[in-house]
Amino acid sequence: MGLEQDVRLFIDKFSMISPGDKVLVGVSGGPDSVALLHLLWRMKEELHISLAVAHLNHMFRGEEARADARLVEELAKSLGLPVHVEEFDVPAYRERTGLSAQDAARRVRYRFFEEVARRIGASRVALGHHADDQAETILFNFLRGTGPAGLKGIPPVRGKYIRPLLDIRRREIECYCREHSLPVREDASNKKNIYTRNRIRLELIPRLEAEYNPRLVDALVHLGHICREENDYLEEQAAILYGRALKTQREHYLLFTVPELLSSPLALVRRVLRQAWRHLTGAEGDLSYLQVESLLALLYNPAGGKVVELPRGVQASRQGQVLRLRIGGDAPGVPYYCYPLVVPGITYIPEINSSIQARLISLSEAPDPRALSAREALLDYDAISGPLAVRRRRDGDRFHPLGMAAVMKLKKFLIEQEIPREERDCLPLVVAGDEIIWVGGVRPGEPWKVTPETKTCLYLQIMEGEVQGALNN
Amino acid sequence: MGLEQDVRLFIDKFSMISPGDKVLVGVSGGPDSVALLHLLWRMKEELHISLAVAHLNHMFRGEEARADARLVEELAKSLGLPVHVEEFDVPAYRERTGLSAQDAARRVRYRFFEEVARRIGASRVALGHHADDQAETILFNFLRGTGPAGLKGIPPVRGKYIRPLLDIRRREIECYCREHSLPVREDASNKKNIYTRNRIRLELIPRLEAEYNPRLVDALVHLGHICREENDYLEEQAAILYGRALKTQREHYLLFTVPELLSSPLALVRRVLRQAWRHLTGAEGDLSYLQVESLLALLYNPAGGKVVELPRGVQASRQGQVLRLRIGGDAPGVPYYCYPLVVPGITYIPEINSSIQARLISLSEAPDPRALSAREALLDYDAISGPLAVRRRRDGDRFHPLGMAAVMKLKKFLIEQEIPREERDCLPLVVAGDEIIWVGGVRPGEPWKVTPETKTCLYLQIMEGEVQGALNN
Repeated sequence: MGLEQDVRLFIDKFSMISPGDKVLVGVSGGPDSVALLHLLWRMKEELHISLAVAHLNHMFRGEEARADARLVEELAKSLGLPVHVEEFDVPAYRERTGLSAQDAARRVRYRFFEEVARRIGASRVALGHHADDQAETILFNFLRGTGPAGLKGIPPVRGKYIRPLLDIRRREIECYCREHSLPVREDASNKKNIYTRNRIRLELIPRLEAEYNPRLVDALVHLGHICREENDYLEEQAAILYGRALKTQREHYLLFTVPELLSSPLALVRRVLRQAWRHLTGAEGDLSYLQVESLLALLYNPAGGKVVELPRGVQASRQGQVLRLRIGGDAPGVPYYCYPLVVPGITYIPEINSSIQARLISLSEAPDPRALSAREALLDYDAISGPLAVRRRRDGDRFHPLGMAAVMKLKKFLIEQEIPREERDCLPLVVAGDEIIWVGGVRPGEPWKVTPETKTCLYLQIMEGEVQGALNN
Repeated sequence: MGLEQDVRLFIDKFSMISPGDKVLVGVSGGPDSVALLHLLWRMKEELHISLAVAHLNHMFRGEEARADARLVEELAKSLGLPVHVEEFDVPAYRERTGLSAQDAARRVRYRFFEEVARRIGASRVALGHHADDQAETILFNFLRGTGPAGLKGIPPVRGKYIRPLLDIRRREIECYCREHSLPVREDASNKKNIYTRNRIRLELIPRLEAEYNPRLVDALVHLGHICREENDYLEEQAAILYGRALKTQREHYLLFTVPELLSSPLALVRRVLRQAWRHLTGAEGDLSYLQVESLLALLYNPAGGKVVELPRGVQASRQGQVLRLRIGGDAPGVPYYCYPLVVPGITYIPEINSSIQARLISLSEAPDPRALSAREALLDYDAISGPLAVRRRRDGDRFHPLGMAAVMKLKKFLIEQEIPREERDCLPLVVAGDEIIWVGGVRPGEPWKVTPETKTCLYLQIMEGEVQGALNN
């Protein structure tokens, strides 16, 4: 089986290309991307695709880099393909941003690919990464101390980016270039021993192959495939657990139910904690093993009041059965508000970005109060006196919770209910005059409970965001 | 936090020891196991445990080895602990078995621990493996080309074996021995560069620490913990899928439902295939990545009649929607049998290790035929003529399947139903004279179907094994 057939099978295995696709091929001028372009060009009728070529001069290497650009232009022309060559001053960009040379180059290059792809309507961008790149990446991550997620290496497909050569060894690619007399230029910086990744490629992998396992690169490529699949599955399962354990989500903090996490497999809990940190920070990075361990310690050994500091200003702490992750100092407080409640109708509360729906229904139509969620309430409308409003809590509020014998301080009630401090100002209180008839999301008041004598029920529901539309009542 | 506290936390984290345990400590005389013994001895009151010491002289190193044994005996005596020292000629055993020196020593050593533990009633056996051993094992597996399962390394707890030092660096252990002036001897063969593992320990890890990551050992230990947890979870989930996809299990083969596998995450399917091979062979080893890939190819690209050869004489093939894994040439055929059917009652069929329950019930008591499983049937008893029997199929059998217009060859029917060849002789046929009234496990015959005119129903059910007890009819 030749290289071409291997590449074709790999393309099919990952459904990289569909008939009709326009594929933009990123070509540096090195053997990998030149071979990739040539292979795709030969398959283009069979795959029913059209091709275009993109090359970015990173302006790291003056005349040499211009020669690379000319080579790519000429190759594309000889194959009859449109070519998009641009220059970008990566050294200057690097100075501005403080990124490493490799990170800066990568960021600029992908932005360039995005732009060209959008401009010419390319549905795919094909890149020349191969098995040796993959092994190098996996070994790099392994040595650096990554979790299993890092062992998945470079993805064969990510969004519009495809890497058809990812299972092919570099020596096969070089052999292909020689067989087809393809013009290639080697990036001299690839041969320099200065970057860690170059050292891994040029020194460490050859040494490990010679002394420990001649098939090391294949072994790492295979490990990458398995880890990618397992990682996908585990992230999916963790996202399900995340949804189940998440109690409250605000811009500045997340609250999770501890018992839900404690009763779940540790493998998933670790990932939920990492996901939570990523969601909160928007960062691409990850928590370290020891940072996750310190979060787990909060779950397993609740030492009162302990705060775990995480990167990017995230603080984690536990309050009773709630794990709290908070970013950026104090959460912005909810300002005091008080709005008349539209009955029947919908009242939007911008301060907490929620709406309250109010409906009047007869007892016979009313749902069973026991079947309601905490975000719903059913009250005896006839027992309510005074104008209805919805407001934030304030000092000195008192409340008679359903099922309890007497009025108590609202604050005491909320503490007993283990409502975290941040949450307390976010609860909409529905009031009739001076009396709290519903602590929204928590409990209705005892004096307004529905009885067999109730004639008209007031049905209330909290909804996320600003709810529009006519009330179906 | 000192070493002692770290070890204590690690013991608690993995619930290694319970109050009242008798812990047998395997002591070689090297710093690891000597420190382990001393640490456990100091914690013994606090943990409410009793201790004993075991040492095996492997007879690899004459006088030196006897000196190790004396050291351990004296140490145990000085701590007031019972000690069990034995000699075993591992070189001779190695010659007999052809095992490697390390494998032979390990096997003999664990057998010795088992024996002593049983004899003295020890509930736990503590071993001195430490973080550097763990890193070495993980790196060894990584280089050798293991899947993620190999990256979990040495387990902190497996059965009665516990490894309280598994997160502690060797240099901390050596420091502890010096601080407490503990007598230790170093196994000279550990310092020799001849084994791959020794080379990894003595050369590769120090080099990688110096050039790539000074905290490499910690990184690998952490990777090991995560991989162990993820591996446990994935194996559990795979076992669930295994049960769902398994259609038939016999001593010599397993049949899986292809659509169930195809609709499941690839990460689990790979593990189901590995589990199937292990169940069939009883082997401790594992399939390679490429072997699993060739099985996946059977699932995803059903090339008719292709047989995949796997280690230990396992053959895999696909027939329609069934994946078959078979071991050891032809499955032993089911010999011909024919037994009178006990009605009402239970008829045991040793040839297929199954029983058939037969009951007579009135139509009004009968279950809805549509609610029956394939292993049950409901027939019109009054329409049956001739003596009832149960037998294996034979050449030339003909059958009128329920819902079909005419009699057909039984073989043709079974092929159409995608019953794999091995399964066909395992189906009990319930016959009335010459006529097949039920192909057990597949379908009843059309002429005996229950109608509104049916007075008495014959209810039949196949049960695994030899079913005893009175019939509840």
